[in-house]
Amino acid sequence: MKQALSEAAVPRGFRFSATACGLKKTGALDLALLSSDVPASAAAVFTQNLVVAAPVVVSKKNLGVSKGRMRAVIVNAGNANCATGDAGYAAAVKMVEETARRLGCGPQEVFVCSTGVIGVPLPLEKVLRALSGIARNRRPSVRSFAELSLAICTTDTRPKTAASSLRMARRRIHFMGCAKGAGMIHPNMATTLAFVVTDAAISPSLLQKTLRDVTTRTFNAISIDGDTSTNDTLLVLANGASGAPQIKAGTAAHRSFAKSLEEVCHSLALQIVGDGEGAQRVIQIEVRGAKTESAARQIARTIATSPLVKTAFAGGDPNWGRVFAAAGRAGVKFDPNLVDIHMAGTPVLRRGQPLDFNEREASNRLLERHVMLVMNLHAGRASARYWTCDFTAEYVRINASYRT
Amino acid sequence: MKQALSEAAVPRGFRFSATACGLKKTGALDLALLSSDVPASAAAVFTQNLVVAAPVVVSKKNLGVSKGRMRAVIVNAGNANCATGDAGYAAAVKMVEETARRLGCGPQEVFVCSTGVIGVPLPLEKVLRALSGIARNRRPSVRSFAELSLAICTTDTRPKTAASSLRMARRRIHFMGCAKGAGMIHPNMATTLAFVVTDAAISPSLLQKTLRDVTTRTFNAISIDGDTSTNDTLLVLANGASGAPQIKAGTAAHRSFAKSLEEVCHSLALQIVGDGEGAQRVIQIEVRGAKTESAARQIARTIATSPLVKTAFAGGDPNWGRVFAAAGRAGVKFDPNLVDIHMAGTPVLRRGQPLDFNEREASNRLLERHVMLVMNLHAGRASARYWTCDFTAEYVRINASYRT
Repeated sequence: MKQALSEAAVPRGFRFSATACGLKKTGALDLALLSSDVPASAAAVFTQNLVVAAPVVVSKKNLGVSKGRMRAVIVNAGNANCATGDAGYAAAVKMVEETARRLGCGPQEVFVCSTGVIGVPLPLEKVLRALSGIARNRRPSVRSFAELSLAICTTDTRPKTAASSLRMARRRIHFMGCAKGAGMIHPNMATTLAFVVTDAAISPSLLQKTLRDVTTRTFNAISIDGDTSTNDTLLVLANGASGAPQIKAGTAAHRSFAKSLEEVCHSLALQIVGDGEGAQRVIQIEVRGAKTESAARQIARTIATSPLVKTAFAGGDPNWGRVFAAAGRAGVKFDPNLVDIHMAGTPVLRRGQPLDFNEREASNRLLERHVMLVMNLHAGRASARYWTCDFTAEYVRINASYRT
Repeated sequence: MKQALSEAAVPRGFRFSATACGLKKTGALDLALLSSDVPASAAAVFTQNLVVAAPVVVSKKNLGVSKGRMRAVIVNAGNANCATGDAGYAAAVKMVEETARRLGCGPQEVFVCSTGVIGVPLPLEKVLRALSGIARNRRPSVRSFAELSLAICTTDTRPKTAASSLRMARRRIHFMGCAKGAGMIHPNMATTLAFVVTDAAISPSLLQKTLRDVTTRTFNAISIDGDTSTNDTLLVLANGASGAPQIKAGTAAHRSFAKSLEEVCHSLALQIVGDGEGAQRVIQIEVRGAKTESAARQIARTIATSPLVKTAFAGGDPNWGRVFAAAGRAGVKFDPNLVDIHMAGTPVLRRGQPLDFNEREASNRLLERHVMLVMNLHAGRASARYWTCDFTAEYVRINASYRT
């Protein structure tokens, strides 16, 4: 059950804090800590980019060494600590060690995440100076979680949070998550940074498997600009503090758990698209009647990343020819003479033949905040959905002057 | 030898004409005819998009039936005759038949090309009404070729032409070409429309092989927006009217021929990039030290199509982190710790370690009309070049209102 963030929604046994350590020039929150009071089952998906940031390398290593039992996440925004050479790697290790020392746990139990500009040395001393404070000020409250969700933002115009819960064996299990990201969004595992905490009891291996499934349909099914980040990280911590029994694979409890996790991830992923740099609207692209789900997703992804499609959506132009052309270069075989297209509820192509429609009416529907595009290939029974935003002049303005 | 367009540069035995038949709302030239006085060896590369326009289907078929001996090209702009259903196919066939009748040749000897908006029925009667006039008014002049080069433009801000020549057996062989394209440019064989005529004598099969080679390094190595058009067509006609002997594979004459053809195609391809919708500058991306040429090209192409890289170039931002990140998601293995990057002559990364550089000076160089980006992988000896343009707010403005 999806729900609003409230004190009752906070999973038990987790604490959060955030501060402004000076990495963001504006003086905004930029360093945060998330911890579990006991070792939690952990699962993670990281960027598939070959150029990976130092914190991703360190977090991956720690997750392996600790065999999926983690205690904390130390995270900063304002600097991605990527392409920063050997000094950058040493800085990520130091952030982990100093955090572990203050929490009284092993360094292998700490994740480290960074997001922001690439290729600029991380001012480590600013982070270290602020560590004692955020370790001391951790609170199990919605407010401290909201502060954490703000501290991880970069070009985001708003924080992204989501919560969900379910009842199991007379206990309530809670899920709460946050994410950041507005540009360089084309996840090839998880996008940018996202953290989900839950007080469910589940093994690290089942948690990891469940997370991969859920990611395919959520964070891996969104794109803002086709650029996969070097720092993409999605972490889930499950500490068992709800007191509910351990979740086993293939049970009804597992299906409920996966559903709740997907609700949180789906909500966070769509909030990222909705806050896409310069975006005016969210576009859901659904490809139906494909031979396989991956073929459907490949076509949906190609449409979602076409600059010509995305600029047409910016202008409310029912230019279905660009949608059809993008599908045609997706690298998936289909018969163009069988294809139907609906744009924002208006049928524009049926069995490969263009249809007459009221352009003005269609255009008005395309200018709404949420727009649905449906393409039916009539080649099979598989389908997939993908979400993107429109491509505006504002996106260009934001990215032509990001660093200067 | 590359040369300017002049009467002396016109290959012998070709004639050209153009008119305004009413497909462009502005009343500009929009229908053109190119013909050879005798059957010419013909080679062509067409779009690899699965959604192909009716004229591409018809032209491909005719080239096969005539076994590579063609006489003419009838071409219109203002309507792509793509996704126009059965009526669109019939219209393309009719354009071919009526052109052939007026030229006194077989319909299988006529290419037909269209470019413009997708999915709108072609007003065939406008084309047919104008056919007699353009058949009658064909001239072997630079001026009529220049009119043809204007008639094929859509969102282009200027026509693109190029010429080249070489001496062989005391005869001069001429090459003259034109191209159009400013958006939906990401060729996966040839981009948009381009026509090259030469009075060299060469067999259709050797011409086709040579054209494929040349295309890989020219039209297939440019991108404006990553969108492969449904109508991409590059045609070469060689009618032998120079009187020079037939060119045989593997000879010095063949190498000279290929070099001249590449000069014309390279020039046309770069003129397309330079006239990219909203573009301020041309960016040459060179990847060196790769294991294979195709690996180098794959990385160069990924950098060239990254919206974040292209918007950084729009703002003159030496944001090499985005270049590095784009390379990392190209799907080609390399060691990030060996990579060097130079931006507009400024070294910014050496062996994976960031370098100090003067940001203001680097930014000034990035604001020039032509910018070079060099990445060395230090993994092998292969290299490749790719050309693109910057991504501006103007691009979005043009494409958010193309049809309306």
